[in-house]
Amino acid sequence: MKENKENVVISKATIDRLPLYYRTLKISQEEGIEIISSDELGRKIGVTPEQIRKDLSAFGEFGKKGVGYYVRELMRNIGEILGLNRKWNIAIVGVGHLGWALANYANFSSQGFQLQAIFDVDDEKIGRYINEVQIFHIDEIKDIVQSRNIEIGIITVPAQHAQSTAMRLVEAGIKGIWNFAPIKLDVPDNIHVVSEDLSVGLNSISYYLSRQNN
Amino acid sequence: MKENKENVVISKATIDRLPLYYRTLKISQEEGIEIISSDELGRKIGVTPEQIRKDLSAFGEFGKKGVGYYVRELMRNIGEILGLNRKWNIAIVGVGHLGWALANYANFSSQGFQLQAIFDVDDEKIGRYINEVQIFHIDEIKDIVQSRNIEIGIITVPAQHAQSTAMRLVEAGIKGIWNFAPIKLDVPDNIHVVSEDLSVGLNSISYYLSRQNN
Repeated sequence: MKENKENVVISKATIDRLPLYYRTLKISQEEGIEIISSDELGRKIGVTPEQIRKDLSAFGEFGKKGVGYYVRELMRNIGEILGLNRKWNIAIVGVGHLGWALANYANFSSQGFQLQAIFDVDDEKIGRYINEVQIFHIDEIKDIVQSRNIEIGIITVPAQHAQSTAMRLVEAGIKGIWNFAPIKLDVPDNIHVVSEDLSVGLNSISYYLSRQNN
Repeated sequence: MKENKENVVISKATIDRLPLYYRTLKISQEEGIEIISSDELGRKIGVTPEQIRKDLSAFGEFGKKGVGYYVRELMRNIGEILGLNRKWNIAIVGVGHLGWALANYANFSSQGFQLQAIFDVDDEKIGRYINEVQIFHIDEIKDIVQSRNIEIGIITVPAQHAQSTAMRLVEAGIKGIWNFAPIKLDVPDNIHVVSEDLSVGLNSISYYLSRQNN
């Protein structure tokens, strides 16, 4: 059913929608839905059925004309595309409240993201554990990243330390960075950075409430 | 320059991109860029210039052909569309690490979102302050929401309490909910809910790293 198309350039916008498809299919599956139309899937996500068909067509042929998508199968296929069919070792740098919250976020491990280490510079935190994962001093980052085969680093340090933290992660051999500090990181081209801006969700709410009030 | 078009149906996908435009324009402005082309803006965000022109055309006419967009002006216009030209009073329910982290998130207040109250059920937390904002018992929610004119509630309670928390927010008179619990909330149609899934950023990274490794 799935057929990888090589040499197709896929837009970032399409890739950013795939996790939404995945999440919505997962919820549908948990609700016991076995087959879903692109109309219904689009309604749940807030994109047009045409967009869904176009997005998915970049990766192969999915679904049956006049029937819809098999929820479990499409979810598995999108999961494969997103690399969720394997384990990813991840590390968090910065044990403030956000770092602590992320270390406890159960959804990551259910998707194959395994927290292998946490780093900080505060002597009072080093040596402690969050959910059985040890907090190490940042000076140990290279050894730990390499010995534990960690590929993704999560930056939750204060903004003024984010760039130097990114460089330490890169030097340690990390390939992807998920950045929560509100600055643009300057890293080599082969490192994939996703910067999270927690305001986006609130912006969407204020947009809708502004319309209602008018 | 800005011309509100009434009776135009705007897709959720467009609205979800507006905060990205806003954020990217803000960064550009901070970098001293005064004029930006849709090509350049698109490159920074990862969408096509056609998509940007299409998205913005739903709200009026922006930019000058052959010149580009005036960064400060477009940022202000998108800010208005997103309702960021006014103050929004918000509250957080649930003082775990994530609630604590969000209460400290400086970007919210810079966008006009003012944290007016925090709620919990833990007697040890009630009466304490996070950044000068008081933690109240959830039983006081209706009084506080009404007296402080709070319109948006943020749910950071454990999943099993999220639905009942949502109902208490709705009964208290809240209009928008930002939900961090990994469940789908069942609320009246006139309440706008945005559910945050923190896995989406990681999924995007794993997608790109999967391609690299192949």
